[in-house]
Amino acid sequence: MSDGAALERFTRRLGYAFRDPDLLARALTHRSAPGANNERLEFLGDGLLNFVVAEALFRSRPGAEEGELSRLRSRLVCEDALARQAERLAVGDVLILGSGEHKSGGFRRASILADTLEAVLGAVYVDGGFDAAREVCERLLADAVSQLPDPGLLKDAKTRLQEFLQGQGRPLPVYEVSAAEGPPHLQRFTVRCRLGDGPETTEGRAGSRKAAEQDAADRMLLKIGEGSHA
Amino acid sequence: MSDGAALERFTRRLGYAFRDPDLLARALTHRSAPGANNERLEFLGDGLLNFVVAEALFRSRPGAEEGELSRLRSRLVCEDALARQAERLAVGDVLILGSGEHKSGGFRRASILADTLEAVLGAVYVDGGFDAAREVCERLLADAVSQLPDPGLLKDAKTRLQEFLQGQGRPLPVYEVSAAEGPPHLQRFTVRCRLGDGPETTEGRAGSRKAAEQDAADRMLLKIGEGSHA
Repeated sequence: MSDGAALERFTRRLGYAFRDPDLLARALTHRSAPGANNERLEFLGDGLLNFVVAEALFRSRPGAEEGELSRLRSRLVCEDALARQAERLAVGDVLILGSGEHKSGGFRRASILADTLEAVLGAVYVDGGFDAAREVCERLLADAVSQLPDPGLLKDAKTRLQEFLQGQGRPLPVYEVSAAEGPPHLQRFTVRCRLGDGPETTEGRAGSRKAAEQDAADRMLLKIGEGSHA
Repeated sequence: MSDGAALERFTRRLGYAFRDPDLLARALTHRSAPGANNERLEFLGDGLLNFVVAEALFRSRPGAEEGELSRLRSRLVCEDALARQAERLAVGDVLILGSGEHKSGGFRRASILADTLEAVLGAVYVDGGFDAAREVCERLLADAVSQLPDPGLLKDAKTRLQEFLQGQGRPLPVYEVSAAEGPPHLQRFTVRCRLGDGPETTEGRAGSRKAAEQDAADRMLLKIGEGSHA
């Protein structure tokens, strides 16, 4: 629950003043609370954010291939990353929760914070249009974008995975080509990466076996929670 | 490969004249052809299209819940639907393929047509900005949006699945709750739908067991290719 002063502090941190305060209120209303909630706005905001991040990466990484752009985007819009941004904005101070969810600490739950941030971005779009919403998204994510590992580092996912596992005294991962499809000049390789001591597997796809291995390694790093240490 | 006249007919069908013809040429260049290809533009166009469709549904279906919006979007932006739009625009006439892919009929392949259409939409965005790109997307998809099953029909996915299977003399599907998570006032149900005579399974998730069953049935209809018959 929140009061007017808290809301005003929040919109100042967000850097956007709503013309329609009801839209903001709805964006802050979790489905555990009575009345209209923020799930539809979250759907819209999720689409907006994915697109704005796609464009930011498209422009700022002119040399990056599609697969790399796609992996970088996953890092920026994953629940953890969004929850961190939501915490910076202190979304929890203005979140409207049902009483049960309030008691059980919902205002600190990463999934709720991330979803609410997406709903707020969707509400900015409905209230102020694309340029305003893009500006808010870009400002929010500017630090995260600039802290992304550079493409050179990213390309070395196999090495990073190996070093991480060795640092824990664990066996090396195994890479196997699980499929090679398409005509020879256009083959697509699917490589499975398997940990030597755990059930986790990931699959990478690319136009060469080497690139598919890197892709699989990168996904494994994300899966075992080492993705952001690059 | 294409000539100037074919390109002009294409942009007329598309309803957008490029300021920068190089952008259009790149959008039409499949990765099998030498030189810069359309994969980065496809990444951008995919994000654009998902967002524009999200917004169109958000506005045109004020009563639809998030899960329904999300399922409707999947129908509109799936490979089949996009390939159909690409065929209406005769993308195959202006597609630039490598010689191997050309000989093997790549200009008719649904995945290539769908990806190229996304790349063209990405190029419109880079060339003309958001409003121009949204207009093109919305015009392209107007028929498909208006032909979407109405929410009432969609809610009846279990009935549609049952009727489809019965029409083929096949056994009824089985629904099982595979998970119920969260505090009582916020429970999320996961329901697995299994065909009586095939290996296919799907999972639906929602805030009630009934809604999760509908979700699972809807996904099964999509999986067995009956999704658009609603």
